[in-house]
Amino acid sequence: MTVQKIQRLLIANRGEIACRIIKSAKEMGIQTIAVFSEADRKAPHVFMADEAVCIGPPASSQSYLCQDKILQVCQELEIDAIHPGYGFLSENAEFAKKVEAAGLIFVGPSASAIETMGSKLAAKEAVKKYKIPLVPGTDFSIEDPALAKEKAREIGYPVLIKASAGGGGKGMRAVYSEEELEEQMDRAMSEARSAFGNSSVFIEKYITSPKHIEVQVLGDKHGNIVHLFERECSVQRRHQKVIEEAPSTVISPEMRQQMGDAAVGVAKACQYVGAGTVEFIVDKELNFYFLEMNTRLQVEHPITEQITGKDLVKEQLRIAQGEKLPFTQADLLINGHAIEVRIYAEDPHNNFLPDTGVLEVYKRPFGPGVRLDDGYEEGLEIPVFYDPMIAKLISFGKDREEAIQRMLRAMEEYHITGVSTTMDFCKFVLQHEIFKNGSYDTNFVAEHFRPEMLQNGSQEDKWVAAALVHSFFQEQKSNHKPDALATKEQKSKWKQRLK
Amino acid sequence: MTVQKIQRLLIANRGEIACRIIKSAKEMGIQTIAVFSEADRKAPHVFMADEAVCIGPPASSQSYLCQDKILQVCQELEIDAIHPGYGFLSENAEFAKKVEAAGLIFVGPSASAIETMGSKLAAKEAVKKYKIPLVPGTDFSIEDPALAKEKAREIGYPVLIKASAGGGGKGMRAVYSEEELEEQMDRAMSEARSAFGNSSVFIEKYITSPKHIEVQVLGDKHGNIVHLFERECSVQRRHQKVIEEAPSTVISPEMRQQMGDAAVGVAKACQYVGAGTVEFIVDKELNFYFLEMNTRLQVEHPITEQITGKDLVKEQLRIAQGEKLPFTQADLLINGHAIEVRIYAEDPHNNFLPDTGVLEVYKRPFGPGVRLDDGYEEGLEIPVFYDPMIAKLISFGKDREEAIQRMLRAMEEYHITGVSTTMDFCKFVLQHEIFKNGSYDTNFVAEHFRPEMLQNGSQEDKWVAAALVHSFFQEQKSNHKPDALATKEQKSKWKQRLK
Repeated sequence: MTVQKIQRLLIANRGEIACRIIKSAKEMGIQTIAVFSEADRKAPHVFMADEAVCIGPPASSQSYLCQDKILQVCQELEIDAIHPGYGFLSENAEFAKKVEAAGLIFVGPSASAIETMGSKLAAKEAVKKYKIPLVPGTDFSIEDPALAKEKAREIGYPVLIKASAGGGGKGMRAVYSEEELEEQMDRAMSEARSAFGNSSVFIEKYITSPKHIEVQVLGDKHGNIVHLFERECSVQRRHQKVIEEAPSTVISPEMRQQMGDAAVGVAKACQYVGAGTVEFIVDKELNFYFLEMNTRLQVEHPITEQITGKDLVKEQLRIAQGEKLPFTQADLLINGHAIEVRIYAEDPHNNFLPDTGVLEVYKRPFGPGVRLDDGYEEGLEIPVFYDPMIAKLISFGKDREEAIQRMLRAMEEYHITGVSTTMDFCKFVLQHEIFKNGSYDTNFVAEHFRPEMLQNGSQEDKWVAAALVHSFFQEQKSNHKPDALATKEQKSKWKQRLK
Repeated sequence: MTVQKIQRLLIANRGEIACRIIKSAKEMGIQTIAVFSEADRKAPHVFMADEAVCIGPPASSQSYLCQDKILQVCQELEIDAIHPGYGFLSENAEFAKKVEAAGLIFVGPSASAIETMGSKLAAKEAVKKYKIPLVPGTDFSIEDPALAKEKAREIGYPVLIKASAGGGGKGMRAVYSEEELEEQMDRAMSEARSAFGNSSVFIEKYITSPKHIEVQVLGDKHGNIVHLFERECSVQRRHQKVIEEAPSTVISPEMRQQMGDAAVGVAKACQYVGAGTVEFIVDKELNFYFLEMNTRLQVEHPITEQITGKDLVKEQLRIAQGEKLPFTQADLLINGHAIEVRIYAEDPHNNFLPDTGVLEVYKRPFGPGVRLDDGYEEGLEIPVFYDPMIAKLISFGKDREEAIQRMLRAMEEYHITGVSTTMDFCKFVLQHEIFKNGSYDTNFVAEHFRPEMLQNGSQEDKWVAAALVHSFFQEQKSNHKPDALATKEQKSKWKQRLK
């Protein structure tokens, strides 16, 4: 296989991940071409890329998901490779096929790997011969309630009925006893049919308080596959990750090796090329089971970059160029500890529903042990059309304690007003005893968080903090008394002025 | 020795180093108290600290150098420790004594270590028994021209005549032959008398194309001393460092160990406590000679933090509290490569003389492998009263090439207008063949840089870049055509508008 250097890379995405990809591509001397919807005219990814093209109206279906428009831009602008980021077209096998058919490099795995891992049952089937631990359950689609009852009894209640084509909790039903099985199965099949056009379901053991731990893998086009250790992603709200850390607090070196080997096995099962993530659930006894594989760059990839010193986007691009992995498994080591908090425009007081608005004040944190990957600037609006993530704040340190301290310090420096965010919620989590001792599982938020636990007056504090920032940094006239900074009167004045 | 936790730390400094110290102190849960001059009312260090006190007019002599004012604040605000940063009072033995006499912790070495290392001859004398390689020369003050001639002949021309109390090139004279010795010696002694109130000089071999390489050390109050490897600081303008990197490109593992051992020997010679730096000069044959010890935190300490994973400010504070070093020499490893460029408000077209003005546009770079330590915000003025450094931009990567690429990318993201800076000059250096191949020495800038080598139209480019930033991020109305971003007409328009 010859190495084919990428010259002009189109980034088929937006927000922080588009910016992050552009940075690594620039460092490699690759020209970057952004696409953007009409809602993203002023977005940083547009400004940062060497060239940028508008591909349609705000709705994703008419812009970022428009395969033909994107391929047309590629042809017109003499693009030779496409990075899909995450979300949008990143796990669309049809798109990957079209990209290759157009003679372009798709920075990602083959269409067949995407397809196999996109179906839970096909994935189970594929990994069979690699002896990957699977959650006890049926490895075939099931329709007959009598057979379902027999299998559920073998597995032991509670069980989950899951849509084979599923995701995001759709077509998924928990069943606690045989009496409710038939009814829940009907509902799951009907949900699966309307959500995925496919009523196929299967049954699995329901692990009630699991940890969600995933392993990063990288495979090249020469058959080499390595893993880059795990990320613990159990802090979730609305079944979606919000805080991740690496390494996990509960994994021994032996278990790390076993999970790493299993992840490499999963990747081998689909001849995986590129960066991918193998997700596991881990029960209270620290048994781990293969859940699914995400055939793309993961949102939380930066924490792996911080503890391994590898730039995963650059590795993706090098792999796509046909280069061999520049390291072996033995070269990879964990250094220190990293944490990521996702700053979403969401209201924790309103069940984490997305919030929209203009970033009135947006001051980034920085300094030792802090990295920020974001996709907005002060004055920009958070559009309603896309995922409401504003930024990923990453801290790292020599150990977990230092990473937590740095994250708390960085969040104190980070000023956002104009929209509600998950920041105070993340502060709450990082200071919670159960997070600090590392024993949290995916039920943590549901069990331990109530909106009223967030500091009272936090909105007022935010105004004052924002006003302080304004007063110090943006005002030219000053009337502070030297020894009485930020008196109550001043705070109140700033607050009024900012409102 | 009992551990005495620091509760309230006064930072007797300003600018980036005050901010950087506050960040680490906050992470340790220590309350921070800033002092500021009237010129720094709106400076970030004032805003970031838990409390802030104005200590006088802008001139350093009436504020940051005012020992008694600072000690008075300590008494009034119940401070228990002082961090002096670098510059100002950091290497003032008298101040260190007063701090201890007041019952406070001085975050730094003992007054006697400061005193010993503050005198070049006393330092040479102190390190004698540790067999530290010294530049061939006299180890005593010399006044008699006949004796000077004899010694210079033994050493071999060219030689340097140096003031014993010297620094910054004052009282220093190069002598290329015996004929000029007497005259240059007279001049050196007279300069030394007027600069330091002490005409004492000595003679050293003049190493004409040296590299400047220094070693970071840490010593605790229990007698443990380790080194944290070297920093290469040979890129200098006006005899002052402007770009540093770690590790050095020319040092073998054996030489690294020898220099590290020598640095630890120097530190032992003065029973060093805290963070200090042992400076060496290295000749073309890679012989290294002890030059001096800086008994404080060094400006370029972040590159050591990046390659070792240690937070040097936290280590300083822990040592000051009486804690033992939490690692041994064997625990310390180099991971990756780090570079620092110093962004000064200086005009490279005018012999790097300081520039002043308001930071009209100030957009920070960020993202993977980039750290910024700064002390300003958009809208603030660079005061004429202090060192004109705006920021330290630090990049790090798995190897030197990646660190350079990331630095170039970060500098492209970094927008500063309103004052001239060293940024374009640093870009020039990072792309120069002699920097890239690592063979540069302290003559590099003098020999290879001419202001006219900076890109033509760079001022225009800067306006356009700044205008782009403004246009994208701060304007609410937009009239870009989707497929024609940043046309010449627009650039010209933005440029006009911004002027």
